[in-house]
Amino acid sequence: MNNKNTSKPLEGILVLEFCQYLSGPSAGLRLADLGARVIKIENPNKGDLCRILPIKDQWVDDNSLLFHTINRNKQSYTANLKSDSELESVKGLIAKADVLIHNFRPGVMEKLGLSFDQLEAVNSTLVYAEISGYGSHGPWAKKPGQDLLLQAMSGLMYASGNQDEAPTPFGLAIGDMLCGAHVVQAILAAIWRRNRTNKSIKIQVSLLESLIDFQFELFTTYFTSGKLPQRSAISNAHSLLAAPYGIYQTKDSYIALAMIPLENLKLCINCEGLMAYDQSMVFSKRDEIKAILATFFINQSTAGVMEKFKSRGIWAAELKNWKKLKGEQGYKQLELEQFIKTNNQKTIKTTRCPIRFDGEILWGMSAAPELGQHTDEIQKEFSL
Amino acid sequence: MNNKNTSKPLEGILVLEFCQYLSGPSAGLRLADLGARVIKIENPNKGDLCRILPIKDQWVDDNSLLFHTINRNKQSYTANLKSDSELESVKGLIAKADVLIHNFRPGVMEKLGLSFDQLEAVNSTLVYAEISGYGSHGPWAKKPGQDLLLQAMSGLMYASGNQDEAPTPFGLAIGDMLCGAHVVQAILAAIWRRNRTNKSIKIQVSLLESLIDFQFELFTTYFTSGKLPQRSAISNAHSLLAAPYGIYQTKDSYIALAMIPLENLKLCINCEGLMAYDQSMVFSKRDEIKAILATFFINQSTAGVMEKFKSRGIWAAELKNWKKLKGEQGYKQLELEQFIKTNNQKTIKTTRCPIRFDGEILWGMSAAPELGQHTDEIQKEFSL
Repeated sequence: MNNKNTSKPLEGILVLEFCQYLSGPSAGLRLADLGARVIKIENPNKGDLCRILPIKDQWVDDNSLLFHTINRNKQSYTANLKSDSELESVKGLIAKADVLIHNFRPGVMEKLGLSFDQLEAVNSTLVYAEISGYGSHGPWAKKPGQDLLLQAMSGLMYASGNQDEAPTPFGLAIGDMLCGAHVVQAILAAIWRRNRTNKSIKIQVSLLESLIDFQFELFTTYFTSGKLPQRSAISNAHSLLAAPYGIYQTKDSYIALAMIPLENLKLCINCEGLMAYDQSMVFSKRDEIKAILATFFINQSTAGVMEKFKSRGIWAAELKNWKKLKGEQGYKQLELEQFIKTNNQKTIKTTRCPIRFDGEILWGMSAAPELGQHTDEIQKEFSL
Repeated sequence: MNNKNTSKPLEGILVLEFCQYLSGPSAGLRLADLGARVIKIENPNKGDLCRILPIKDQWVDDNSLLFHTINRNKQSYTANLKSDSELESVKGLIAKADVLIHNFRPGVMEKLGLSFDQLEAVNSTLVYAEISGYGSHGPWAKKPGQDLLLQAMSGLMYASGNQDEAPTPFGLAIGDMLCGAHVVQAILAAIWRRNRTNKSIKIQVSLLESLIDFQFELFTTYFTSGKLPQRSAISNAHSLLAAPYGIYQTKDSYIALAMIPLENLKLCINCEGLMAYDQSMVFSKRDEIKAILATFFINQSTAGVMEKFKSRGIWAAELKNWKKLKGEQGYKQLELEQFIKTNNQKTIKTTRCPIRFDGEILWGMSAAPELGQHTDEIQKEFSL
């Protein structure tokens, strides 16, 4: 399935990734998948600490499976940035680069002599992207910029789960992923500007700012009403949306109901309790309506209600877990899976870049690099 | 606070947004905040249906507050795309545009004569971006591409909440927001390529592909192990990460603990039950360890444990809701809030673009447009 070989949109862009864990490397991965050449600059001892961060105790060739999944299509160049001569070599590489990304804590790059201002003399057209947890200054600047901690600090944990339940984390590294996505946007916008001005540009994004941007509806509503958003007591799925928005257990599985006018719902299901309510009550009586629906659906078969919903074009879906999804034709035809071969000839099956250009999938088949795998050849190539 | 006026990176780019609700408009918003000129092409009757989609029953000047928050900095041009003459005018506008984004269901733009292929003759250097729910073809192509339904279909609801709890939605429109972010990445990469090749490019992203990309860790682990990821029974925060990763209730609030080696945790807290466990057990005994910690922390004060964590550099944080966060200096110094004035002189306080360029915040102060507000002036400007 991976035999296509199309020219990729970012071919010709050289990116240096001074990053570890997830936010920075996820940005590097997207740029690499889009065709940029991405070189990880790693410490010769351990490298990106994600190499030793296990998920579910899964390892491939001494590296965490997680590391493999977000560092495919990249090269690894090792340098001790505290050694003057090695630092000089790295600066030689920076001189040739289009983009530098780092996610060190504020102050680290400055101490190394690799701040934006310090590099102006090395490369006057560099796009310099800085990822932090909480911004470059202020009382929180030195705090660890870790995803779960940022979820905790940003209010996000009060968005999921039901009202009387404990605060509920998003079960994936949402801060890292959004911040990484925003950095890619910023880098590509900066390249557009640099190509016209021929001047270097500094970009800054923090996990906290990305997570607050993500919660724009919650913040704006709070600013406007003065009231904190309240999760539904039942079937919460979005604290600002009216009944019936949420998921409901049926006799045999679960279904999701999106924004559905109450009158349309009444036409589909024979739920007597619902008759006392109309559209004017979907916010004020949200939990009452949801409770009635929860009691109703628990005695229905999923197939039965889904058929009625479908015939009337009602926005509903049956829940699928990953196994069920993987078996569906609608999933298979998207060709989301790709194989990557490691240097030791092991094969990893993973997902692919979600973007298509001119109908073509952007396959990314090179494995994540071994630590320092490309140091020698990069030194020769760039005469470092 | 909003008085700065810097040149923005995407100035000079013209974007036409044939979009409604959240995924497409969130992409348009980011491009607008980055400096592109974004014109919404709307149906003269109702326009973007998000105008009438309330969040928490909040309205400003007849439009939903939600509409205002994601359509600032845009213009509105109304046209009945089923009228030949109005369609011709729109094509005149497309001829001048750099980018077209749409999130109609597959087939709609084709019927209107506005597909990528049909527009090649109108604008041979157009970046044409297509957002769908499930891709452009296949058995699910015509399904409604609504966020909660996509969460339901993609497995994502089995990532949050505890193991024995019902599937738990992410409490915000995560599919829309990620897909919108990916489309922006794709558009900016395509502009880079178009500027070199002078050829039009078609981009496609779907909510399902974006949500599967987001779950790359879960899918890759499932592909590799053959076992479905299991949420923790207690304090679940990421189904692939070991104890103690999660949130814990204390005597007076909640704390989040990130990846912390068990030995480090033992040095900080005097938790006898923990002594029977070591680092080799953090996956295999995850729930046992978490249960012991849950019982321990419920009797501790947040300030007490946080002080111990802080002194040892342990990755922990106290949970904040939006109100508490808003009062903190670390939040205030990021200057995340901005005021927007509507045409009727009402003021809306909302959040801002999370990206800084050269240290400057990208303020976006123009209000969302009234339906058709700019039709006349755009017709004159482009001689349509």
